[in-house]
Parts: sequence; structure tokens; C-alpha cells
Amino acid sequence: MSQPFIVIIAGGKGERFWPQSRAAKPKHLLPVVGEKPLLAQTIDRVKALAPKKNIFVITSAVQEKAVRAACKALPPANIIAEPVGRDTAAAVGLAAAIVGARDPRGVLAVLPADHVIHDGKAYTADLKAAFAAAAADDVMVTIGITPTEPATGFGYIQRGEEWGRFARRPVYRVKRFVEKPKLEIAQGYLASGDYSWNAGMFVWSVPVVEKALAQHAPELDAALRPIRTALARKRPLAGVLKKVYPTLPKISVDYALLEKSTNVVMLPSSFDWDDVGAWPAVCKHFKSDVAGNVSRGLALVEQGSNNLVFSEGGHLVTVLGVDDLIVVHTPDATLVCPKSKSQDIKALLKRVEVLKGGSKWL
Amino acid sequence: MSQPFIVIIAGGKGERFWPQSRAAKPKHLLPVVGEKPLLAQTIDRVKALAPKKNIFVITSAVQEKAVRAACKALPPANIIAEPVGRDTAAAVGLAAAIVGARDPRGVLAVLPADHVIHDGKAYTADLKAAFAAAAADDVMVTIGITPTEPATGFGYIQRGEEWGRFARRPVYRVKRFVEKPKLEIAQGYLASGDYSWNAGMFVWSVPVVEKALAQHAPELDAALRPIRTALARKRPLAGVLKKVYPTLPKISVDYALLEKSTNVVMLPSSFDWDDVGAWPAVCKHFKSDVAGNVSRGLALVEQGSNNLVFSEGGHLVTVLGVDDLIVVHTPDATLVCPKSKSQDIKALLKRVEVLKGGSKWL
Repeated sequence: MSQPFIVIIAGGKGERFWPQSRAAKPKHLLPVVGEKPLLAQTIDRVKALAPKKNIFVITSAVQEKAVRAACKALPPANIIAEPVGRDTAAAVGLAAAIVGARDPRGVLAVLPADHVIHDGKAYTADLKAAFAAAAADDVMVTIGITPTEPATGFGYIQRGEEWGRFARRPVYRVKRFVEKPKLEIAQGYLASGDYSWNAGMFVWSVPVVEKALAQHAPELDAALRPIRTALARKRPLAGVLKKVYPTLPKISVDYALLEKSTNVVMLPSSFDWDDVGAWPAVCKHFKSDVAGNVSRGLALVEQGSNNLVFSEGGHLVTVLGVDDLIVVHTPDATLVCPKSKSQDIKALLKRVEVLKGGSKWL
Repeated sequence: MSQPFIVIIAGGKGERFWPQSRAAKPKHLLPVVGEKPLLAQTIDRVKALAPKKNIFVITSAVQEKAVRAACKALPPANIIAEPVGRDTAAAVGLAAAIVGARDPRGVLAVLPADHVIHDGKAYTADLKAAFAAAAADDVMVTIGITPTEPATGFGYIQRGEEWGRFARRPVYRVKRFVEKPKLEIAQGYLASGDYSWNAGMFVWSVPVVEKALAQHAPELDAALRPIRTALARKRPLAGVLKKVYPTLPKISVDYALLEKSTNVVMLPSSFDWDDVGAWPAVCKHFKSDVAGNVSRGLALVEQGSNNLVFSEGGHLVTVLGVDDLIVVHTPDATLVCPKSKSQDIKALLKRVEVLKGGSKWL
């Protein structure tokens, strides 16, 4: 097998970690956990798998500048900005086209930029096994995250019989993908041991992606052709992307390709994983005080427990006599919100949007 | 009667409205309600009673600069800064000495700087009646605030028989002063109709104050002599205050004089009055939104009711999914606290004090 390729999808709207995250600075550009932005942490992890020239980041125009700043280790040409967001199927098609221009039989991993994974060793070992599987046959390999609780916020992948072993790791046929379940259903999934979380981590060869596009998403496949031509002729991408992207269908890769294919296999993960979906999920990655309060920057909690208090820029944030509250202060905006309501930040941001000059806070 | 004198006592620690209030900028220097600092509002009200040259403000050294800025309408010499705080008995002794140097038989009102009173007409009418009473006989006239609820945070004054009528207003003998009562006791006071709140508003002549000092607080009286001498010789006050003040006993005028005197009378107030003792008390003076939220500056509440959200300096403060919370943002510090816990700000500030460089926030 030739050297593998890594394509990191760095998108997102920057809503769930507002006011730290913004449209131009979403979660993957924040050190939500750790000292570096999550995107930089992701790049650090995959460096063990592929040379830098084989690592790509696909992001959006509005985030491009900040992404380039966070990816100084990579060749500048490996940062590709989508002029408009067209969901993951388009991004995967673009990824396969870019890799295909380098190596028509290349194998690439498509990975999210904004997950928290501490055990880099297990992560790269799993990915190596997935690369071996994807190189061995015309299959789509998904990394299924081994569930730790009956989560209702993720899609699940049900495995079937064992399909093969790679680096001593079992790889299973995929029976089906299922949407985010209700709690009782999720409890059944967890108990059965047959289900993994779908975290959007895929490993496959360029021909497998291209064949699937042609078969299941012919419209997208056709629309991507000018991009492949530009790449083959080594023309700069920006111009063709600007022309092609607005015409692409907006569809997820799960729906466009995975769910319609019969050659999907799944490798259950052995690494720790957290998508840290919203502010409350941050807490478990920080050391708390005796009362369970988590803080960053100049924060002080008196008579309160299990609060998250983050402050930037030397501003003193004090919380008195309250529990389970999120208080995040940035130089131009502050959020105060109970942990139980953090999923409603979107509704709040709709209100911010219509304030006079509201876009400056988004 | 010669022209009356007004002495406004502008002290306070600046704790209860932290972080807007600070040691050098306590409540009376804030526009807690209205557009001007409460001290400036107080001066505006008493201008109808006395010429500017007869209006004095006694404040503390740490607040002097800000007080002078808020009292530009008064002669600079009428702002007197106590080098150290020695409670209200010392301030009243100093007030009487200052007025006595101008008019040995002068009548002065001693008034707090930080109360909210909207009906200035009724206020000046009541004070005029009190001045008339104090000029008519050797009595200490207190303005008793007519209670509107069984408050447990104020001392009460029980009235006895009617002592006289001034400007058609009845003035009663005072039976006794009582400390802050428990709720059931306060309910009884309110029902009886015999009790008023003690708001620290006194009207009396210089000889009455001096006689009471000599009789009930001889130590304080003796210690004040060098101040009287300096005033008589028209020497600047600062030097003698610096020498004398640290030696003065720290005692309230209620305890030192009023409670020990038998010539105390009380005029029940006819004006609205609010001492606005802490953040929650601010709300009723502001227009709220339909959900009862009160805000000032760039504040936004989504899915929440009865919150107070104040922001300074163009910083956007957002509150999502919470009720009855106080959020006050200033350029260098923010407070988040349920209304029910605002009395514990003192405990919080003890924590701020021990932070590295903590004094800069106090």
C-alpha cells in the first residue's frame, strides 16, 4: 500500500460554544480541552499515520484564515476552503478528487476536526488497521465508536458478522445505520453490544469513493468533474470551487453514500472519544474544585457547585450562590445559562442576530 | 429662624452594589436609579430648602475625589472628607461644629446621601415642618419613614403622644427606638400604626446637638474641641481632622445620642422612600419587559424571567433559560448571583480581597 492520506473536515457553525466560538472560529479552532485548538490536536495525532504532504484540511471560506493559522505545520496548498458549505458528501467528493490527483489508487481517511481523543496511540493503531482493511478490498471502512452510555445524540451503526481481521483487530460487516434513537432504544443498543456510534470517521480508497459517487450520487459526481479536471491539469482550485460549489447538492455522506452501499464495514474503536457537543460536556475534561466547579481564567465561585466559569482577558467573573450554571466571558460578549439549557444557545443567537450590529457577535 | 443648614452624610463601603459600587465609589455615587448619582439627586432635592452655601457633604477620604466631582454645584469648602470612618456620631458632631461656626444657633438637617425618593415636594414639605419643630424647641426631630411592609432590615421608632403641629403636620414624642425586628414582631409594628422606620434623618439645632454630646457622649464631645477651635479661628480643617479623627470613638448617632435622649420627637414622613439596600431592590424602579426582566446597557434575556441584567461599555451580556438572577457586568468584573443570595456579596468580596491584586476590584 502506498502512503495513506488524511483529509480532516473542519467545518461547523460556531454556535454551541458561543461566545468563545463564532462563525469564523468554531469549536475546532478553540482549545475546548487542552492547550491547542482541537484541529491542531487532530493534526498532531495523525502525523504518526501520514507524511505532512498527505494531510489535508477542508474548511469553509469564513474560517480559512483562522484554520491556516492553526495548521502552519501543513503545506499551505493542503488547506482547501469551500466557498459555501455543502455538507459532508461534497466534502468527501472533493477529498477523493484531491487525493486521486496525487494517487489514483490512494487510500484516504476522512476525519472530523473537533473530537477530543486523549489516547493517540490507540487512535493511530485503529486507523492503521482501518487503512489495511480499506487497502485489502473495495470496502468503505467506518470507525465505530464503542458506546459508553445510551446516548441519544448520535447515530448508531449496527454490525453484522465478522468480515476480516487487520492488525489483529476484527472488522465487521455493517448491517445498518440508524438515526439518533430514543433513550429506551439506545439502552437496547448498548445492552446488545452490536452497536457503535457513528462519528463520521471513514477510510476508503479513491476508486471506492468514486464508484459510490457514480452509483449513488450521480448528480454530485457529475458536478465534481470540473474539479477533477482542474486538479489533473494542476490548475489552482479556488476558481473552480467558486464556480462549482454553489451548484452541488447539500447532503450528508452518510445519507448519500454509506447508507446506500452494501460494501460498508466497521472497525469498533479502542480509543477514548468525546465529541464535546456543548458547554456542559467540557467539564469532565477539566480538574474541578471540591464543589465540582470548573474554571478557566479569572473566575471565582462562592457558595456554589458544579458551575463552569470561563473568563478571558483578565476580567474577574464571580459567581455567588448558584449551582450548575455556565458563565463564559469573552472580551465582547458573555453567556449565562444553566447547564440544562445549553442546547438552546441557537435560539439565543437568533436573538443576537437581530440586535443592531448583531453580526459582530456571531 | 435663620436659613437652615443641610449636612449630607455620604459614606458607605461600596459592597452591596458590587461590581458597580467600589470602596471609592459606593452606592451614593452611582445612578442606581435615575440618571444622576444618588448623592447628586439628594443635593437637587435639598436645594429647595437651603442656599448652596448652607449645604455640606461629609464623606470619606477614599471617596473624596468622586464626591467632589458629583457635587460641583456646591462650594468646594462644603465638601468635608473624614480621614478615617468613625460612624455617624462623629459625623454629626463634625456637622454641628461646622454649622455652629457659621451660626451658633443654626438648625441643621442631617440626611443620608443614598436613598431613593421620587416625591421631592413632599420631602421638602416634611423637612420644612421638621425645621420648624426644631426651631421651636430644644428637641431632636427625626423623620420617621411610614412603613409599607413588615421590613426586618430597618430599625423602628415607636411614637407616643402628639407633641405639636408644624405646617399642619403632627409631630409625636418618641417612645423608643427598636433594633431590626423579627418578621412577626415587624408585622405587629406595621399593624399597630405606631411605628416608623428609622432612616437616619435628623433635624436639630447646634445647641441641642452640643448639649446632647456633652451629656451622653462626653468623650466624643471633648475630642471634637480642637475641630471647633480650628473652625472658630478659620483654620483649614484637613490638618486637625487628620489628627483628631483617629482618636474618636466609633459609634452610631442613634446609640450615642438619640436612644439616650428624652427630647426626641418624630415627624412621620409623607414622601415615598426606598433605601434600595441591594441589587434586587433596584428592579422595582426600572421598567421591565413582559417577563419581568430589567436591563441596562447591552443585555439580552432569552427564555428567562425576573432577571436583572446590567452591562457597561458595549459588552453584550446574554442570559439564557434562567430566572431571578442578577448579572452585572462592568469593564473589569462581573457578578452572577441569584436575587435570593445578594446579601452574601460581602462573603464573596472577602474572597476577592485575597486574590492576587484583589484590591483593584474592591
